[in-house]
Amino acid sequence: MDHLVQTTEADWQRMTDRLFLDELHVGQRFTSMSHVVDADQIERFAAEFDPQPFHLDEDAAANSLFAGLVASGWHTAALTMRLLITGGVPIAGGIVGAGGEIAWPRPTRPGDELQVVSEVTEIRPSRTKPDKGIVILDRI
Amino acid sequence: MDHLVQTTEADWQRMTDRLFLDELHVGQRFTSMSHVVDADQIERFAAEFDPQPFHLDEDAAANSLFAGLVASGWHTAALTMRLLITGGVPIAGGIVGAGGEIAWPRPTRPGDELQVVSEVTEIRPSRTKPDKGIVILDRI
Repeated sequence: MDHLVQTTEADWQRMTDRLFLDELHVGQRFTSMSHVVDADQIERFAAEFDPQPFHLDEDAAANSLFAGLVASGWHTAALTMRLLITGGVPIAGGIVGAGGEIAWPRPTRPGDELQVVSEVTEIRPSRTKPDKGIVILDRI
Repeated sequence: MDHLVQTTEADWQRMTDRLFLDELHVGQRFTSMSHVVDADQIERFAAEFDPQPFHLDEDAAANSLFAGLVASGWHTAALTMRLLITGGVPIAGGIVGAGGEIAWPRPTRPGDELQVVSEVTEIRPSRTKPDKGIVILDRI
């Protein structure tokens, strides 16, 4: 597992300096670190979760509708979560999704650099636990 | 990487017997194989993509809002894709998502068995490529 992208001490450091609910406001924007995707990452994720030729093999992908290797959309989504967690949206207590809309306007290809910019669009404090709430974020 | 869930010959066999666009109809239902999630899978995915205590460590998770280890929602989503691809929705040419709505009504825990039942709710043939089209699926 030596080529897995493991969480480093630096990542954890960024995760300790976090905002509480009363420090968040609508319109607030956050920008994540960036992550460069390569063919090995794409093929490894696909082998486990999305084994289709255009995610698994450069030659097979060349003849597909993508005309080249592309990441599984779920790989792009998972990397987005990693970028959010490792400083992209520094919310104390962690980020747990209830759901939302997801779209893949264009595929992630080897060499692409991913970075997530998020904006707080709504804050709904809990009625019973005033230090907790639902924060609606848009990826912009 | 010996504990990765790799695609087997049997998986590929299931992937060769697929339906073409004119063999699909609204109301058609598909049921995937099932997959049992364990703590090791949950923690390994989390280490790479969603490093939060309630996904990473059983002891830390015991004190979290989940009161126990739970899978990242993106892990559940990725496993759902695996189940769709390996026979869950046998569509010729593969499955590529443009987007949609996603919800996590309850978390996946160690020992949970995932199985995906899908229903075709709409078919929109391509105007220019009559053998291709957009198939709208609901997970039910």
